[in-house]
Amino acid sequence: MTELRQDYISGQWVIMATERAGRPGSNTGKHIYYREKTFFEHMQQESCPFCPGNEGMTPPALLVLDEEGSEITPAAGRAEAESIWQVRVIPNKYPALTAGEGQSESKKRSGPSNIEKAAGNEFFRKLEGYGVHEVIIENPSHSAHPGVMPLKQMEIVIEAYFQRFTVLTEDNQNLRYIQIFRNHSREAGASLEHPHSQLLALPLVPGAIEFEMERAYRFFIKQATCIYCLMLEEERSQGRRVVAENDFFTAFMPFASLRPFETWILPRHHQTSFLELCKKERKKLAELLGRVLKMLEEVMPGTPYNYYLHTAPGWAGAMRHYHWHLEIIPKLSVRGGFEVGAGININVVLPEEAAELFNHKGRSKQNETKLSD
Amino acid sequence: MTELRQDYISGQWVIMATERAGRPGSNTGKHIYYREKTFFEHMQQESCPFCPGNEGMTPPALLVLDEEGSEITPAAGRAEAESIWQVRVIPNKYPALTAGEGQSESKKRSGPSNIEKAAGNEFFRKLEGYGVHEVIIENPSHSAHPGVMPLKQMEIVIEAYFQRFTVLTEDNQNLRYIQIFRNHSREAGASLEHPHSQLLALPLVPGAIEFEMERAYRFFIKQATCIYCLMLEEERSQGRRVVAENDFFTAFMPFASLRPFETWILPRHHQTSFLELCKKERKKLAELLGRVLKMLEEVMPGTPYNYYLHTAPGWAGAMRHYHWHLEIIPKLSVRGGFEVGAGININVVLPEEAAELFNHKGRSKQNETKLSD
Repeated sequence: MTELRQDYISGQWVIMATERAGRPGSNTGKHIYYREKTFFEHMQQESCPFCPGNEGMTPPALLVLDEEGSEITPAAGRAEAESIWQVRVIPNKYPALTAGEGQSESKKRSGPSNIEKAAGNEFFRKLEGYGVHEVIIENPSHSAHPGVMPLKQMEIVIEAYFQRFTVLTEDNQNLRYIQIFRNHSREAGASLEHPHSQLLALPLVPGAIEFEMERAYRFFIKQATCIYCLMLEEERSQGRRVVAENDFFTAFMPFASLRPFETWILPRHHQTSFLELCKKERKKLAELLGRVLKMLEEVMPGTPYNYYLHTAPGWAGAMRHYHWHLEIIPKLSVRGGFEVGAGININVVLPEEAAELFNHKGRSKQNETKLSD
Repeated sequence: MTELRQDYISGQWVIMATERAGRPGSNTGKHIYYREKTFFEHMQQESCPFCPGNEGMTPPALLVLDEEGSEITPAAGRAEAESIWQVRVIPNKYPALTAGEGQSESKKRSGPSNIEKAAGNEFFRKLEGYGVHEVIIENPSHSAHPGVMPLKQMEIVIEAYFQRFTVLTEDNQNLRYIQIFRNHSREAGASLEHPHSQLLALPLVPGAIEFEMERAYRFFIKQATCIYCLMLEEERSQGRRVVAENDFFTAFMPFASLRPFETWILPRHHQTSFLELCKKERKKLAELLGRVLKMLEEVMPGTPYNYYLHTAPGWAGAMRHYHWHLEIIPKLSVRGGFEVGAGININVVLPEEAAELFNHKGRSKQNETKLSD
């Protein structure tokens, strides 16, 4: 059983999920307390649950996409269907939250509904854990992560994000936020090497999103404009921190980057939620995200990173003040007592310099290509 | 040159300190971007700048304490004085912030004064870096960290914290907050193995402290009591998460611990600031902090951790709503894309179970001691 708890002082919620201690790749049982190794144990393709041929090692797929990004119906027979998959979405076998397994179907349907049902007194408020935790296997190949895989593959991954986001948004009585995220390398929190993203649907809007939306709302009420639209305009007019762009999206390293090489990708025209993307825009997102991750891999091979979506919940509808985006956070430094205690990061690389390095590498690559033409 | 930058969306400040890239033990120069190794290169006593005999490798000490915690005046001759030191406080050779080195003395004295002087437009506000960064060498011994050193030694360390905190509080026109913190092991952010704490005096009150003080203030105005005092009462009456106590302090693992084995130490009677401690109370703090760190070392040998003070600024005077405390954060898990993106940690150990493990070990140790008596 898992549960959510709210901190008395900060109001911040935490998920208590003791079962996750036993997941593969983590240090299990009583040894969980020892520090993790910073490399993956070499896993043969036979034993990797995400490799083709091993579909039986995972729960049945929730979504299977082929090389066109089209859904493969399991009707054709599971084994056969999955033999040609490009992206597979499965339930996380070691979920941080579950939709009430072992509960009656009616309770499962009604769910915890919302945060008002939190139990406990003022200091010990808690809420039963409720949610959905899924894994998006991005590739049949064990080692073809986004830094090296074809851009086309990223389109199928984004398509999978979009389809699961759409389906889970329907259950807005129980699931108030859908967090899509990716951990690349063990240092960034991955426990299995095979390229995968994750999705965690929550019974509440996370504090980080609530805070961001509130800030944006306050700005909007005062200034009558979206703060993200204005930021994008400023960054594009300065240009120094912009690292990549296409006709729908801009990628730049924010002025006050908390960490070296932090990169944000924003839709260039105002959009509230990831759910508003049309098919063409989804392809453009895949193109830009893939391109930025390839630049990162080229400039700093093997860099661990996280990326995640920050979006308004799908049920919130269009809002003039909030603008969804994707944040890429390379993990190049350790948070120490100062960062954790004061909540102030120390960043050792200016975003302008980081952007220049990206752009220089990008340009030299471009030149090389031209020369070899 | 360093500078502070404020994020447009969150309002959070970040210190840009590119010079820190070249500090010893970090990956230097252009290779800074490669991930850090998770072990210390073995450093001979001859080459450790914090070991006795190598005082010349560091800037001159700001404070030197002997085995009674009394200040040794450099008048007796520096080399001689330092040959018997127990704790030495020195300027950080690779500071995140400096008090305007290279500036005229008058500018240095006046400093940036405060955050209102932040320059730049709405999106690109910045503030010149200004502050003090010191290292508190805790021990002449290269390997005697708090988990294994005598409790008596911790008294001298706390005494050093207190004296530097007192001195730096006097410059409240320029230094608005003093963050004392400790990083144990490389995984927790330490770049040198020799036991040391750090102090970073800032030109602003960090967001994490401002936020905490505001939450406490709101509670106080509504409930006419300090939320920390009430929390302490609740935790002590439940008892399940309390791990150690003496007549002045209580250590417990908070109900909504963000991380496994997170432990808070609070003064049992309301105190606003660390600066309010009398000599006797400082000894009691040293005793309890030392005891908790020894328990941690015993239960999980070699665990990396951070600890830091959360206190009202010394200049703020006594406030009924805010209650200073110390937080110990063992580093047993990696923050992934979900934690960073949603701002919600996933904790795999309940604080009640963590506390039981501490208390059980503590008890069995006590029994052992009794049996062997």
